[in-house]
Amino acid sequence: MDQDLLAALDIGGTKIAGALVDGEGRVLLRARRPTPAREPGGTVMGAVAEVLGELRAAPQWGRVAAVGVGSAGPVNAGRGTVSPVNIPGWRDYPLVAGVRERVGELPVTLVGDGVAITAAEHWQGAARGRDNVLCMVVSTGVGGGLVLGGRLHPGPTGNAGHIGHLSVELGGEPCPCGARGCVEGFASGPNIARRALADGWRPGPDGAAGAAAVAAAARAGDPVATASFERAARALAASIAATAALVEIDLAVIGGGVAQAGEVLFAPLRRTLKEYATLSFVRHLEVVPAGTGTDAGLVGAAAACREVLGRPE
Amino acid sequence: MDQDLLAALDIGGTKIAGALVDGEGRVLLRARRPTPAREPGGTVMGAVAEVLGELRAAPQWGRVAAVGVGSAGPVNAGRGTVSPVNIPGWRDYPLVAGVRERVGELPVTLVGDGVAITAAEHWQGAARGRDNVLCMVVSTGVGGGLVLGGRLHPGPTGNAGHIGHLSVELGGEPCPCGARGCVEGFASGPNIARRALADGWRPGPDGAAGAAAVAAAARAGDPVATASFERAARALAASIAATAALVEIDLAVIGGGVAQAGEVLFAPLRRTLKEYATLSFVRHLEVVPAGTGTDAGLVGAAAACREVLGRPE
Repeated sequence: MDQDLLAALDIGGTKIAGALVDGEGRVLLRARRPTPAREPGGTVMGAVAEVLGELRAAPQWGRVAAVGVGSAGPVNAGRGTVSPVNIPGWRDYPLVAGVRERVGELPVTLVGDGVAITAAEHWQGAARGRDNVLCMVVSTGVGGGLVLGGRLHPGPTGNAGHIGHLSVELGGEPCPCGARGCVEGFASGPNIARRALADGWRPGPDGAAGAAAVAAAARAGDPVATASFERAARALAASIAATAALVEIDLAVIGGGVAQAGEVLFAPLRRTLKEYATLSFVRHLEVVPAGTGTDAGLVGAAAACREVLGRPE
Repeated sequence: MDQDLLAALDIGGTKIAGALVDGEGRVLLRARRPTPAREPGGTVMGAVAEVLGELRAAPQWGRVAAVGVGSAGPVNAGRGTVSPVNIPGWRDYPLVAGVRERVGELPVTLVGDGVAITAAEHWQGAARGRDNVLCMVVSTGVGGGLVLGGRLHPGPTGNAGHIGHLSVELGGEPCPCGARGCVEGFASGPNIARRALADGWRPGPDGAAGAAAVAAAARAGDPVATASFERAARALAASIAATAALVEIDLAVIGGGVAQAGEVLFAPLRRTLKEYATLSFVRHLEVVPAGTGTDAGLVGAAAACREVLGRPE
């Protein structure tokens, strides 16, 4: 049996996950450490090394052809460095070099986490077989990635698809990124909850005050909760329509925790999308929920290195 | 001497231009007819046929390898049809079939006019040698096109780069396209003039009331005229930043009549771009004026078919 597996790393502010993934996108083996996000960069790299150590100790390691790394961004795929917002000890941190040291001669591919999720959806999820797709993750933040002309489009630095930071309101609220009126300020889970609270929505007896609780209230008919999801949907719709006008996509796939709200999000999203996606070549644009689950980051890191190695299918 | 020339057609609401273009982007021969834009579709095609007839009558016609067509959009490159907003007699009109009938066995490539201009800039203008570029035409409307990974990105239907219809203000003014708050509503020449007039700017003794007159007034220190250009620049900046966040470009090239305003447009554009292009991988984005001149549409149609034929350089 030869090199039929891929090693994957999914690096976020909360956890560092690793896996061996087979040619059908199945996870054969997992390893995981909490991210020591407030520690110095070397300590964070130590946690990555432990995850890689577990994978390398597996009998299947000899079958690994390449290593794919999806990381919270921004990343710099060209230089092999990462600067994840939530891991302050890593600024232009040479993650690829650190991984290379621990995996011998194997090729290492780095992409942003939005690009990784997109690769997973294209390989195994709702974007399978589709050539021009925007995949979005609507969660604590809003990220995404693109498939153009049948191939993943990571962009030169691996950050393409940063849809959460499109401005859809020129004079809108300041965003932590420094711009104004960003999609994320309307549509991320914390911002949906924040705006509902600001407009008078109150948590129920269990005290849950996140986007899931707002979604439950909207489902039960609360008008303020409903309005917060509608506002989020409108911002997402404008950004999806913008993407379609710019690069021609015919499918938008939405995943992440906020997408779990189901029709509370998708119904106004499909409705408002008709208001913004008006040009003849974007009008047929479909919006669907993501098809991959909690392993999307790992499967996506494997898929991204598979695509970069030039073996799609 | 073999097939070293390209035939080009540039079809707009005012004129139908044709040319033979050599391998260095030089126009060897021109033909031109006014567009009978209010006539039935067959009459418009008749004017195209006359232009092609002039080109075919030239002794160099035997050296033509392919025909490139840039048309006012929307176009449908896959089906070979066009529906130019300003030519109502052409709706899903089979332009490519009409051209094919008149050029024998030559391959015919159709792209939108924004994509054609982009191809011209990539081949001969300010985008030469650059791999990830947005080219914009800011004129009566606002259009554009993309170069991604070193290649023209026309999209499946030849319409990619429709940047004038990104919404940068969710609840903004209705746009003729049906959406709201589109870039074109802030930044096209007629809209710059309209907003200046609405805010109290008045034309000088010559009565000129277009964007060029507003630019002259701004240059002379008129605050209302200046504000209208600043508003246009801000909308353009947000859309350029959005494009960079989505697909990673490092250069934006701005052409068209409004770009003739020079620093009246470019100074606030560069300044406001810093406010919206804040992510690490988009911060280095440059904005420059277009490098091609009045032949850009023709040279671009030739360049687009050259790229599609797979002979860039």
